[in-house]
Amino acid sequence: MKEQLRELFEQSMEEATIEELEVLNNILRGYNKKQKKINSSYIGGLLHMERTMDDKECHLTVPLSPLLNNTLGIVHGGITATIIDSAMGTLANSILPEGYGAVTTQLNIHYLAVGKGDYLQCKAYIDHKGTKNMVLSAEVHRSDGKKIAQATGSFFIIKKK
Amino acid sequence: MKEQLRELFEQSMEEATIEELEVLNNILRGYNKKQKKINSSYIGGLLHMERTMDDKECHLTVPLSPLLNNTLGIVHGGITATIIDSAMGTLANSILPEGYGAVTTQLNIHYLAVGKGDYLQCKAYIDHKGTKNMVLSAEVHRSDGKKIAQATGSFFIIKKK
Amino acid sequence: MKEQLRELFEQSMEEATIEELEVLNNILRGYNKKQKKINSSYIGGLLHMERTMDDKECHLTVPLSPLLNNTLGIVHGGITATIIDSAMGTLANSILPEGYGAVTTQLNIHYLAVGKGDYLQCKAYIDHKGTKNMVLSAEVHRSDGKKIAQATGSFFIIKKK
Amino acid sequence: MKEQLRELFEQSMEEATIEELEVLNNILRGYNKKQKKINSSYIGGLLHMERTMDDKECHLTVPLSPLLNNTLGIVHGGITATIIDSAMGTLANSILPEGYGAVTTQLNIHYLAVGKGDYLQCKAYIDHKGTKNMVLSAEVHRSDGKKIAQATGSFFIIKKK
Repeated sequence: MKEQLRELFEQSMEEATIEELEVLNNILRGYNKKQKKINSSYIGGLLHMERTMDDKECHLTVPLSPLLNNTLGIVHGGITATIIDSAMGTLANSILPEGYGAVTTQLNIHYLAVGKGDYLQCKAYIDHKGTKNMVLSAEVHRSDGKKIAQATGSFFIIKKK
Repeated sequence: MKEQLRELFEQSMEEATIEELEVLNNILRGYNKKQKKINSSYIGGLLHMERTMDDKECHLTVPLSPLLNNTLGIVHGGITATIIDSAMGTLANSILPEGYGAVTTQLNIHYLAVGKGDYLQCKAYIDHKGTKNMVLSAEVHRSDGKKIAQATGSFFIIKKK
Repeated sequence: MKEQLRELFEQSMEEATIEELEVLNNILRGYNKKQKKINSSYIGGLLHMERTMDDKECHLTVPLSPLLNNTLGIVHGGITATIIDSAMGTLANSILPEGYGAVTTQLNIHYLAVGKGDYLQCKAYIDHKGTKNMVLSAEVHRSDGKKIAQATGSFFIIKKK
Repeated sequence: MKEQLRELFEQSMEEATIEELEVLNNILRGYNKKQKKINSSYIGGLLHMERTMDDKECHLTVPLSPLLNNTLGIVHGGITATIIDSAMGTLANSILPEGYGAVTTQLNIHYLAVGKGDYLQCKAYIDHKGTKNMVLSAEVHRSDGKKIAQATGSFFIIKKK
């Protein structure tokens, strides 16, 4: 399998433009972050997610690159959703006692402006914590300070098996 | 840059488990699909999206792999959102006359079941087409037939520059 | 108290325009419907809700009058929401076994066209029934056939005390 | 018509329990408020809405009574939606220049706790003001301070005819 991969890799590099090489670099470094457990999922790695958190808020930063764009050359709405769901989910899980987890049951996102610039930063916070469910809010700003999305999400609290 | 990339690649392969090699294969093949314009975005390529469409519905299929999972080992909610937004957006844009585009202004997703199995299939359809906006619905089923998500989205119709 | 009410009533009638008298008639007949248990809530009475239902769908019809309008002279968005929540809630509760109830935890409404004409008709149906929650959809059409709203709602299934 | 109304009124009073008389009093006083233009709609009158507003926030208070309850004896979800839509709509319209209006295109409500107590108070505020649309948020608290609902709404900015 490795030889086959090497061939695929060399072929990809051979035909690549400079932008494409940069994306490939981006991808491989992201893959590597998951492999080295710097990020706990491939998605976190490929998005180069960095986060800070206390028991009130989760901040998540994602540098932008053509990898994350839709065909219009701006950040794909699904990427913004991924950042929001990651920030909310991380925060929701962090405040639960051992043995409990939080799963998204509903997510509502308002897209307010185009995603572009150097990076996106998402702030998630808890609006409501019940015994069976939670509601969280999140806002996403881009590097020039403009808010590009805001969202609310519902989470079920489940007992982990 | 190529030499640096080659090093990064070899290093990634060296340390890789079999599952990690399979993910790497998945990623490189996806990257290649964008390079060869089989998919029109890196996201479409990395998700190995395949779609069929008429003027009523857009069907979009994505094979599952560990690449798309969250830290719980099930499909990341953001990936489901990406599939939904892609299917809705593709359909919304396809029915507009030349020179017009549709941008997502709001997306509401109900997550109904865990995303797992061989693939996810999303069906998007148009609920309402006004002069300034559209509303679309989408459902996502997994390969065993279970519905895992349903969504509605609002789109603005804009004049392309 | 009755004498005071009588005074208030006579005073209201004295100053009333014909439209205002018709609204008063509407209100009193609605109040009476609740009193006579034709409707099970004052809101149901005042809106003159009529419904038909099987285990798949709930249809709810509400005749329009100036009573239900906002200051722009069209149906208040909150009235449309009330009709939707009533239809969904009635259906959700109807399919649960004895001793269980369904409460709305989230409601998302897309307003598509102006509410006007002779009546509004809402159709609610079940999208998903889990062990802990349900998701329902609803559409509201006006008497000329135009769809004015569509919605999805999340419901918790609770054990009644 | 007046004689007929008088008969309906007397009949309603005759059969009424004390709670029903209080609701009737509530209704007639609310109807009167619209007639005297204290409230600008029947809904505002019947809900005895009182509001304060600046260019940042709209606060709207509604005293509770059995009139506003569903069949479970708690505030109907549609009433909470009506309060939210009223507060958001009033604020959205208030910041627009002469000749422009704001219409709700989408409303998403999270119901967090049961509506009961002496009154509900809704606070609406503006999250985003674009050239074509606005996004607003709202929170509803009951008289004991508990938050019972939170919501986001999308509004189109339209030129009034």
